[in-house]
Amino acid sequence: MTWAPGVEAGHPYGVHNLPYGAVSAGGPPRLVVRIGDLALDLAAACERLLPEVAPLVSGPVLNPLLAAPATTWRRLRVALRGWLTDASVRPVVEPLLSPLAGTATHLPFEVGDYVDFYASEHHASAVGRIFRPDTPPLPDNWKHLPIGYHGRSGTVVVSGTPIARPHGQRRVSGGGVEVGPSRRLDIEAEVGFVLGAGTRLGEPVALADAAEHIFGVCLVNDWSARDLQAWEYVPLGPFLGKSFATSVSPWVVPLDALESARTPPPPREPALVSYLDDSSLAPWGLDIALEVELNGAVVSRPPFPAMYWTAAQMLAHMTVNGASIRPGDLFASGTVSGPEPDQAGSLLELSQGGRSPLSLPGGATRSFLEDGDEVVIRGRVPAAPGRPELALGEVTGVVVAKAALQ
Amino acid sequence: MTWAPGVEAGHPYGVHNLPYGAVSAGGPPRLVVRIGDLALDLAAACERLLPEVAPLVSGPVLNPLLAAPATTWRRLRVALRGWLTDASVRPVVEPLLSPLAGTATHLPFEVGDYVDFYASEHHASAVGRIFRPDTPPLPDNWKHLPIGYHGRSGTVVVSGTPIARPHGQRRVSGGGVEVGPSRRLDIEAEVGFVLGAGTRLGEPVALADAAEHIFGVCLVNDWSARDLQAWEYVPLGPFLGKSFATSVSPWVVPLDALESARTPPPPREPALVSYLDDSSLAPWGLDIALEVELNGAVVSRPPFPAMYWTAAQMLAHMTVNGASIRPGDLFASGTVSGPEPDQAGSLLELSQGGRSPLSLPGGATRSFLEDGDEVVIRGRVPAAPGRPELALGEVTGVVVAKAALQ
Repeated sequence: MTWAPGVEAGHPYGVHNLPYGAVSAGGPPRLVVRIGDLALDLAAACERLLPEVAPLVSGPVLNPLLAAPATTWRRLRVALRGWLTDASVRPVVEPLLSPLAGTATHLPFEVGDYVDFYASEHHASAVGRIFRPDTPPLPDNWKHLPIGYHGRSGTVVVSGTPIARPHGQRRVSGGGVEVGPSRRLDIEAEVGFVLGAGTRLGEPVALADAAEHIFGVCLVNDWSARDLQAWEYVPLGPFLGKSFATSVSPWVVPLDALESARTPPPPREPALVSYLDDSSLAPWGLDIALEVELNGAVVSRPPFPAMYWTAAQMLAHMTVNGASIRPGDLFASGTVSGPEPDQAGSLLELSQGGRSPLSLPGGATRSFLEDGDEVVIRGRVPAAPGRPELALGEVTGVVVAKAALQ
Repeated sequence: MTWAPGVEAGHPYGVHNLPYGAVSAGGPPRLVVRIGDLALDLAAACERLLPEVAPLVSGPVLNPLLAAPATTWRRLRVALRGWLTDASVRPVVEPLLSPLAGTATHLPFEVGDYVDFYASEHHASAVGRIFRPDTPPLPDNWKHLPIGYHGRSGTVVVSGTPIARPHGQRRVSGGGVEVGPSRRLDIEAEVGFVLGAGTRLGEPVALADAAEHIFGVCLVNDWSARDLQAWEYVPLGPFLGKSFATSVSPWVVPLDALESARTPPPPREPALVSYLDDSSLAPWGLDIALEVELNGAVVSRPPFPAMYWTAAQMLAHMTVNGASIRPGDLFASGTVSGPEPDQAGSLLELSQGGRSPLSLPGGATRSFLEDGDEVVIRGRVPAAPGRPELALGEVTGVVVAKAALQ
């Protein structure tokens, strides 16, 4: 139990959570740890109590800390829990706490490479039926490897950044093309993983070593322009349909905070090749519940435990060819969709490719996003016996017409 | 004409070239400009003669200079040409020249995002025939937009870096999969473009403004594991088949040095949409001749002027959706292949998908690369009336078995 003011037992940002972020209040961004609705100044706390870590957290981003070995992350986390629960250090630490209210949040890490996967069987099947109605919904390779592709790291933005409706080229009926603002702007509700402890070229990360390289977890909205994507994606994959913006939540929850959320992944058939075979390892599924809100109404509750592929498998696959990883690399799960119609993580699925618009409170309907629409994706590990609820924060964005951004 | 020792008139690294690089000789890398076979210490020269630019070139990478507006790049280039031709400053500048021989070259820019295009009609058609024999060779979208995708920026390496043969998963006949070292390791001979003068989210770069953002040109070998790629690439595009390594030449030739190499692109049919329509602009084709050498034998001479899409079109397309660019972003043309069989920029094409192995001097044959093979890709702007030859340097790599790298 923490002595931090206002943080009652079971608070979803209690000492079992302690996510990292970057906030500012007029000045430059500073790294903080969240406890309740308060921010602990990380550099100031480390200077006083853990000086060997202070140089790693004195800047505006987590990358120097990410570059350190996982043992350093764990030492810091243990120290933070100690400081926030031990009444004897309260006089030192309490002056370093300040309210989050009124501060601005910033992207707390500089993104190296950004990779997006496609790890939900329910999503991949639904998209296959919509985009490729004449072929089996899952590609032949889908159950053999976690399909992924590189996204644009330079357009990863923090939650709250306005999202300008992208322009681009699309196919029109009759065989021509036209250019204009996307008419099928969509979301993808995903879970993201922030990497640290980089590797050298030629050194794959084995499944069993994934926890030494995955620093923490955030939420991702991989905004998608379906009309641009449908026209461009053969044969080299999504490009402009995705590259205009990817929003991430401001709080990176340490992987260690999710230990009690570990849960077995679904059964896999056919059996997996050795570098992806996790059957003898501790489970890497995560009991994270997502919630998608559109203009104030919850429209979906995607279940992360339903994902076919785990984060450890994604990392092992991403590096099996010898590709190196860098501190700050981000990879995301791909759209999280469950088996039920109200568990899909994209409007493409929720509206069945636009054929069945969603009804919103007040009589509005939506197949895709309109200018002014606000999307909020939230995530949490639900409370369970002996396990308090743990919040993953939220990732929000309002769609603006291009002119409105400038 | 330069006073620099040993640099005769018409030298391909004369004052009409002046590429940027980073070299070291025991100490840390320093930025230099190449003149003949000499390196001019860029920071030292600017400190003495152009102090307002010195802070931009004092580090190991070009990124601070790239972040400056194009007017700064041009001012520096004009100054460099002046210093190296004006005998009166020779006493100041000559002590800052040193031989390149014996130095190590380094990647002279930190890569932001890496995008690879697919801009050769001859290459795209040939690959289509090999990978998708039952469909038309060019995808429907190919002549409407420059197809591209994001690659892995963290595995972009400088010429000379050993290339570990990637491992990965491939389909085997009968429908199963297996994991092992790639059996179809290939090259892709490409031209790369280094970006500077970043933009903000939501601000496309118009065709007419491309030269304000393209800092310079390098050579690229986009190593490709065809067996991994063929199995993974549907539906999200190439991933592990490409992400293990991308080699770039050590010299970034300023775009301005290529002014006399500008040449009209091929005619386009159908007509292009407005943001790609370059018919009323100065031509953006580039008269660059490539040469691919395998174990000392020239196996191909790919012609860059045959490319259907220009660098300006690639940049306009990449940003039409509002995606921002950052100093250090790299985009490459995709494999450069001409219409003739000995003008293809990949072994996949040169060996017709492995069906017609290449004969090498001494009786060896190759469909794909074997361990120990060395590939050198060279580029130059050929001499023409009133135009001396201009060298783009070379990008080299030796394939090593994975065990040999460690």
